Amino acid sequence: MSLRRQLERLSGEAKAAARILAVVPTAQKNRCLRAMAAALRRAVPAILAANRQDVAAATRAGLSPALIDRLTLTRLRVAEMRRSLAAVAALPDPVGRVLRAWRRRDGLLIKKVRVPLGVIGIIYESRPNVTSDCVGLCLKSGNAVLLRGGSEALRSNVAIARTLRRAARRAGLPAGVLAVVPSTDRRAIDIMTTLSGHLDLIIPRGGEALIRRVAAHATVPVIKHYKGVCHVYVDDRANLAMAEAVAFNAKVQRPATCNAMETLLVHRAAAARFLPSMIRRLKAARVEVRGCPQTRRIVPGLAAATERDWSMEYLDLILSVKVVPSLQAAIDHINRYGTSHSDTIVTDDRRHAEQFLQAVDSAAVYVNASTRLTDGFQFGLGAEMGISTDKLHARGPMGLEELTTYKYQVYGRGHLRT
Amino acid sequence: MSLRRQLERLSGEAKAAARILAVVPTAQKNRCLRAMAAALRRAVPAILAANRQDVAAATRAGLSPALIDRLTLTRLRVAEMRRSLAAVAALPDPVGRVLRAWRRRDGLLIKKVRVPLGVIGIIYESRPNVTSDCVGLCLKSGNAVLLRGGSEALRSNVAIARTLRRAARRAGLPAGVLAVVPSTDRRAIDIMTTLSGHLDLIIPRGGEALIRRVAAHATVPVIKHYKGVCHVYVDDRANLAMAEAVAFNAKVQRPATCNAMETLLVHRAAAARFLPSMIRRLKAARVEVRGCPQTRRIVPGLAAATERDWSMEYLDLILSVKVVPSLQAAIDHINRYGTSHSDTIVTDDRRHAEQFLQAVDSAAVYVNASTRLTDGFQFGLGAEMGISTDKLHARGPMGLEELTTYKYQVYGRGHLRT
Repeated sequence: MSLRRQLERLSGEAKAAARILAVVPTAQKNRCLRAMAAALRRAVPAILAANRQDVAAATRAGLSPALIDRLTLTRLRVAEMRRSLAAVAALPDPVGRVLRAWRRRDGLLIKKVRVPLGVIGIIYESRPNVTSDCVGLCLKSGNAVLLRGGSEALRSNVAIARTLRRAARRAGLPAGVLAVVPSTDRRAIDIMTTLSGHLDLIIPRGGEALIRRVAAHATVPVIKHYKGVCHVYVDDRANLAMAEAVAFNAKVQRPATCNAMETLLVHRAAAARFLPSMIRRLKAARVEVRGCPQTRRIVPGLAAATERDWSMEYLDLILSVKVVPSLQAAIDHINRYGTSHSDTIVTDDRRHAEQFLQAVDSAAVYVNASTRLTDGFQFGLGAEMGISTDKLHARGPMGLEELTTYKYQVYGRGHLRT
Repeated sequence: MSLRRQLERLSGEAKAAARILAVVPTAQKNRCLRAMAAALRRAVPAILAANRQDVAAATRAGLSPALIDRLTLTRLRVAEMRRSLAAVAALPDPVGRVLRAWRRRDGLLIKKVRVPLGVIGIIYESRPNVTSDCVGLCLKSGNAVLLRGGSEALRSNVAIARTLRRAARRAGLPAGVLAVVPSTDRRAIDIMTTLSGHLDLIIPRGGEALIRRVAAHATVPVIKHYKGVCHVYVDDRANLAMAEAVAFNAKVQRPATCNAMETLLVHRAAAARFLPSMIRRLKAARVEVRGCPQTRRIVPGLAAATERDWSMEYLDLILSVKVVPSLQAAIDHINRYGTSHSDTIVTDDRRHAEQFLQAVDSAAVYVNASTRLTDGFQFGLGAEMGISTDKLHARGPMGLEELTTYKYQVYGRGHLRT
C-alpha cells in the first residue's frame, strides 16, 4: 500500500471516529481520559522498553545529547503524561456551549454552538510525551487526532498510541480517535498537509524550518507557532525599579522560550538612569548585551548590535538594547522587527499604556508585566496546545476552545426565504 | 517594476494604512463610508464611462451574455453600491469589543479584545460592484484591502477605487486603505496568495476553480467559500405540508445560489404519501427530478439519479431525490455527499431534530426551515462577505466580526513569571 493510501486510510478511520466522538457526552470523554492515564501506568515497562530502543538507535546515529535528552522517557516523564491527561479530564468541556442565541421577529431561533473541528493532524519533533498530551487535548475537545512525531521517536510513539487506543476502546470509543503515522518517511509530512477533506486542521509543533515546510505545502488549514521576538519597552514615565525587575524576568527566567525578551527598548529620557544598573544586573546573570550606539555611549564596552540583531530570536542569554526617542518610535520598532508575539510597556502613564496596547500589533500586549506570562496555564486556560502567531482562528495561547469551531443550529416552524 | 515588486509595494502601503486604520474611532470610519457613498454619486459619469469601455471590450472578445450582464454597471447598480456603503456605516463597529476579561488572584488583569486582521486580499470575478461592497466591509472592520477583480472589469474597478481612495483621503484616512491591483496578469493571483507578512487573509470570491487555485498556491491564510450541496430531509415524523413548502422554497426560490437544495431525502415511511404531490409541484415549476430506484417506483417516469448526482451542485432547476430507510441513513448520506454548508430536517419529533442538529457536520443545520436562510442578512449580521465552508476562524455567513481577530491586553503591577 502506498504511503498516501495508508495515510488516507488512517485519516478515514479518524474521520469516522470523529463523527462519533463529536456527540459523546462529557462524562464519557472524561472516563476515557482517566482510563488512558491508568493504562499508561500499567504500560510503563512496555513504553520504556520501546523508548530504550529509540534512544539506543539515536545514540548509534550520533544524535546530539540535547536531542537524546528530549527523546528519553523515564518513569517520571510517564507520570507527568498521566497527570496531564487527568488534568485535562478535570477541565470544562468546550463542546456544546451556546456562544450566542437570538430569535428573529418572525420566531426563527438561531443558536451559534461550539462543536469540535473534526480530525486534527499534529506534526511534531522528538519528545514522545507530546503524543499523549495532544491526544488528551484533542479528545477532550471532541476531535480525533492523527500524530506524526519525529522519526527517531517512532517506537516510543507507537507504544504510547497502542496503550491509549486500547484504553479508548475499553471506554466505549472507537480506537480511531487517535493514530500514529507508522512511518519514518519524511514524505508523510507533505502528504498529511494535503489531505484536504480528511483533516480539518494541522498544527506543526517544532522549529521554524518544520513549520515553514508545513505551511509551504499545506492545503489543509494550518495554525502556526512561529518564533517570538519579544520586547520590553521602558517608557520615560516608567517606575525604573519595576522596569528592571520585569526586563530581567523576561530575559533570564527561561531564555530558551518563545515568550522571552530578545530586545530591550528604552526611552532616551530614561536611558542614562536606567541602563547602567540594568546592564550590570544582566551581565551578572551572564547575559551577553549588544547595544545600539547610544546604549554603548551610556554603558561603554558593550558589543554593537547590528541591523540583523533586531530580528533575532536568540533563545539564549543574549539581548539587544536600543534607545528610542519616543513611545511612537518604540511602537514602530516593535511592529517592524517583532513577530507579533508578546510585548510589554513599563510605564506609570495610563495614556502611554493605552497607546501601546492599541498600536502594538501582537497577540499579547502588556503593561508592567513580563512577556513570559504568555502561556495557556498562566492565562488560566488550563491547558496549552502552543502559542499561535497566526491571526486567523486562534491567536496567542491555544487551549481547548481554540481546538473547536461552531455551527449554527436554527429552529423554524416552516420558515421560508421570501 | 516586476509584478511581485508592484504588489509588494501596494500591500506595503496597505499595511501602513492598516496600522492607522486599526486605531481610528468608529465615527471617523463611518464618516469615511458616507463620504465614499457621496463620492460614488458624483462619480457616476466617470464610472459608467469606464464601465462602457470594459463592456465594449468584453463584447468584442465574445464573452457570454451572462458574463456581460454581471460586468455591466448602471445608475441603479451604482445606487445599490452607495446604499450598501451607507448600510455598513450604520452597523455596530466590531473593533474594540472586550470579548472576555478576567483578573487573576494576584491582580493581573487579562482582557481579550477584538481587533482588525490587518490587510485583507479579495480575489473575485466580474462584478465591479463587489469592489465597493468589499471596501465597505473591510474598512468598517478596521482592515485595509487589496482588491484583484476580474481582468475584464479592470477599468471599472480602477475608476471605483480612485473615487473611494479620494473620499478616504478627504475623510482623513490614508488612501492606502484600499487599492486595486492594476494588472490583468493572471500571475497576480498567485503572487498575492504568497505575500505572507504583507497580507493577513485572502478571501477568494468566485467559482470553484478560482478558489481551488488560490487554496493550492496560498501561504497566506485563505477562507474558502466552496460549493453548497444542500439537503432537505423529510422525516417519518414530518408535517408533510410543511415539508413540501420548505423543500419547494429551498429548491425553487433561487436555484443558482449555494444555499439552494440539491438533494431531497425522504424517509421511506413518508415517501409514498409525500413524493407524488411534491414532485408534481416541482415539475410544475419546471424542475427536472432525478430519482433513486424507490423514488422512481413511487413516481414513474422520472430520470434515474446516478452516484454522481449525489455530489452535484446543479445551481439550476434540477433535483436529485433519494428514499432513505432511517434518520441515521439520512445523516450518513449528508455527511458523505454534502459540502458541510446548509441542511434541513423537517420533523415534528424533537429527539429526531436534536439528533440531526448534532450529527450533521454542516455550517448551518435547520429544523423545519429552508436552507435558503443561510445568509448574513437573514441571520441578522447586517452584512455578508460570503458563506464560509471552512471550519477555521469563520464558518457559515461572514459578517463584520468574522473580518476581525483578537489580542490579549494584559495589565500588571510588575507581575513576573516565577
